[in-house]
Amino acid sequence: MKETTKHRILEAGAELVHRQGFNHTGISEVLHAAGVPKGSFYFYFKSKEDFGLALINHFRDTFARMTMQFLDDQSIPHLKRLRKVFAWFLDYFAQHGFERGCPVGNLAQEMSDLSPAFRESLADAIQGMTQAMTQCLRNAQKDGELSPRHDPDELARFIVSAWEGSLILMKVEKGPEAMELFDRMVFDHLLK
Amino acid sequence: MKETTKHRILEAGAELVHRQGFNHTGISEVLHAAGVPKGSFYFYFKSKEDFGLALINHFRDTFARMTMQFLDDQSIPHLKRLRKVFAWFLDYFAQHGFERGCPVGNLAQEMSDLSPAFRESLADAIQGMTQAMTQCLRNAQKDGELSPRHDPDELARFIVSAWEGSLILMKVEKGPEAMELFDRMVFDHLLK
Repeated sequence: MKETTKHRILEAGAELVHRQGFNHTGISEVLHAAGVPKGSFYFYFKSKEDFGLALINHFRDTFARMTMQFLDDQSIPHLKRLRKVFAWFLDYFAQHGFERGCPVGNLAQEMSDLSPAFRESLADAIQGMTQAMTQCLRNAQKDGELSPRHDPDELARFIVSAWEGSLILMKVEKGPEAMELFDRMVFDHLLK
Repeated sequence: MKETTKHRILEAGAELVHRQGFNHTGISEVLHAAGVPKGSFYFYFKSKEDFGLALINHFRDTFARMTMQFLDDQSIPHLKRLRKVFAWFLDYFAQHGFERGCPVGNLAQEMSDLSPAFRESLADAIQGMTQAMTQCLRNAQKDGELSPRHDPDELARFIVSAWEGSLILMKVEKGPEAMELFDRMVFDHLLK
């Protein structure tokens, strides 16, 4: 029962923070959205920062589950799996009016200079994203889909950077163009 | 005299918003940093949003001045000029502890979904950044530095995306590695 309430607070917080940022989201707003009585927050979280760190873990787990569902799909080549991950996200953002962006990238931008604890946890989360892609690119090299002249680790880091930046352009342009350009540049040029 | 006070408020606001974001920065904090009496804010700006829009113009002008100083340097090839722009920024961020990031990209991430007026003004600012780079790449093609198979406009947009994303990684990692990787990937691979 306790875990359910905590989970509800996290789900409501994830939605609000994803939409409007961490500093712009108040605890009472989260509790109201979760339908949880005020005052119970500090039963589950030591502080707003503690809540933010739990949110990062929540975002990281969601991202990992989502991407692995594509990256583990043995029926298609590795690079196609990776391309499907980004196509899934394009769909997701199209359904959400090209708002929100990457919750981890957003928090990295907003909070890295304001909280060392956030910074550390976000660095881990981004490293996790990068490692999953590095592994995919390594497998692609092993299977001859990707030229051995590439460094999978560098490529994965650059792809994550370029993706995060594409989502900034998406948010400002409110259209799919930056993500479509990312797809072409990465899969038709960079990974050739 | 009035203009000087307004300029001082903008300078102080630019510094604070660059460091900690727009929503996290209060008007009284800005006035205190500018050494301007409270109450005078609404003499110069209609609202906090109006102030934010003036800040975007301020950031855009600063960026344009800085980049054109390199892009107009007739003594070296066009792509070298562009590379120097990013090298200047790497230096800047190294001097500031790899904090802050791109003020326009930060506001785009933070404010695009919260204020249509911000979104529109930020879209213009990002388009301005992209256009300066497109022109540089076009000149590079004309002078035979860049293969004619590239589309300068698409390339410039992707470079801006990748740069914005690199700065997110920089903020979270507190080191130059993501910007150095950007430099190699863009100038040693993408623009070849």
